[in-house]
Amino acid sequence: MSISKNQSKIITSLSQKKYRQKHKLFIAEGVKVVNELLNSSLEIDTLFAVDDFQIDIPENKITRISEKDLQKISNLKTPNKVLGLFKIPNDKLLQKNGLIVALEDVNDPGNLGTIIRLCDWFGVSQLLCSKETVDCYNQKVVQASMGSLTRVSITYIDLEMYLTASTLPTFIADMDGENVYKSQLPREGVLIMGNEANGVSDKIKVLIKNKISIPRFGEMQETESLNVATATAILLSEFKRSF
Amino acid sequence: MSISKNQSKIITSLSQKKYRQKHKLFIAEGVKVVNELLNSSLEIDTLFAVDDFQIDIPENKITRISEKDLQKISNLKTPNKVLGLFKIPNDKLLQKNGLIVALEDVNDPGNLGTIIRLCDWFGVSQLLCSKETVDCYNQKVVQASMGSLTRVSITYIDLEMYLTASTLPTFIADMDGENVYKSQLPREGVLIMGNEANGVSDKIKVLIKNKISIPRFGEMQETESLNVATATAILLSEFKRSF
Repeated sequence: MSISKNQSKIITSLSQKKYRQKHKLFIAEGVKVVNELLNSSLEIDTLFAVDDFQIDIPENKITRISEKDLQKISNLKTPNKVLGLFKIPNDKLLQKNGLIVALEDVNDPGNLGTIIRLCDWFGVSQLLCSKETVDCYNQKVVQASMGSLTRVSITYIDLEMYLTASTLPTFIADMDGENVYKSQLPREGVLIMGNEANGVSDKIKVLIKNKISIPRFGEMQETESLNVATATAILLSEFKRSF
Repeated sequence: MSISKNQSKIITSLSQKKYRQKHKLFIAEGVKVVNELLNSSLEIDTLFAVDDFQIDIPENKITRISEKDLQKISNLKTPNKVLGLFKIPNDKLLQKNGLIVALEDVNDPGNLGTIIRLCDWFGVSQLLCSKETVDCYNQKVVQASMGSLTRVSITYIDLEMYLTASTLPTFIADMDGENVYKSQLPREGVLIMGNEANGVSDKIKVLIKNKISIPRFGEMQETESLNVATATAILLSEFKRSF
């Protein structure tokens, strides 16, 4: 079998968010990532796979293709046996308790992917993203977050409105904040992380009660601030370590 | 002025480690990174800059070029005013005390760049890399580590030999290790982090005394292990937080 012109056109279009939203589909590639997603609550639309990819799903969901055809539709440097079109699930109910991470305008797909994995690791089941944050169904995010994408509930939301309404304690990483190693951190709260270049915007900052800082141990004052994903790693570790 | 054929050939060759070692030069690009390196102990060889890049170094070190020529030699998607050729410094004396990070075969330039920034942040002045670890003068590492590259001493070394000879306590991240949140960590020691896919090799593992683990809080056992850079972030934070 081969790929129809129409299928090929849809697959190409899915590199753009507006077409992912129109078709309610996203792409995942490679044996490991596709297997993780197949074993999750996600629904598969079509699986394009070479002959020696064996998997226990109804044959009518699988389109067997040649290595050459896979090469054509793949976005990876070295395509790996399978490309899946998965259905974007409907938004889940917002979780109102527990530890929540909120991202304002995080741009880099690799950073979002890493943060989704961190949420999964540290048992943060709700991740909030401002509307300007990179789309979690962007293929680079899918590949970086792997199966974690299906275990963390990700909601795109008006952060300003959410924070105005929420009664949970709110936290921001800020150089002038309290030393996080000396802070009593609660079990529940919202940790807000900002854009790679600009941090958290002023309009959001005024809504946040608690400022915490990760102390710098190097003597050099020129040291770049920590990357948003590594700062999230350290702060989530601090929130969780005493419980 | 424009770029000579010979210069252009050298610049292109520097994407390969063997030519960086032959010419003892590496590339850094963009206003921010180049400025940080110019303000460090590194020596500049040649700076290729467009007319409106102003900088206080001897004019004979600067070759003024057009935006179009910069485009030709740049490895960035959007070239940013300047590309510098810097001299690779000679190896510094190995530091034998303090907290040391050692990497075995870390492949991804982004991960190495992030780890160099983390060492800088947490005051780790000596980073050891196995010979198979990605070269720290790879341009992606340079761009990701920014000025931190000049503040952390990075030495490529036979790790097995080093660990056999060292008398410092040695630590490895291992799922079966002691909960790091409950461990007494010393001021001095060597933290060894492994390759992205395979972790630390058996021949190195047998030389390491202490196993520590970052507990997983998510309930799902399928959660991917943490990425090597985020795990390093959390562990360095734990080593430093009580001092």
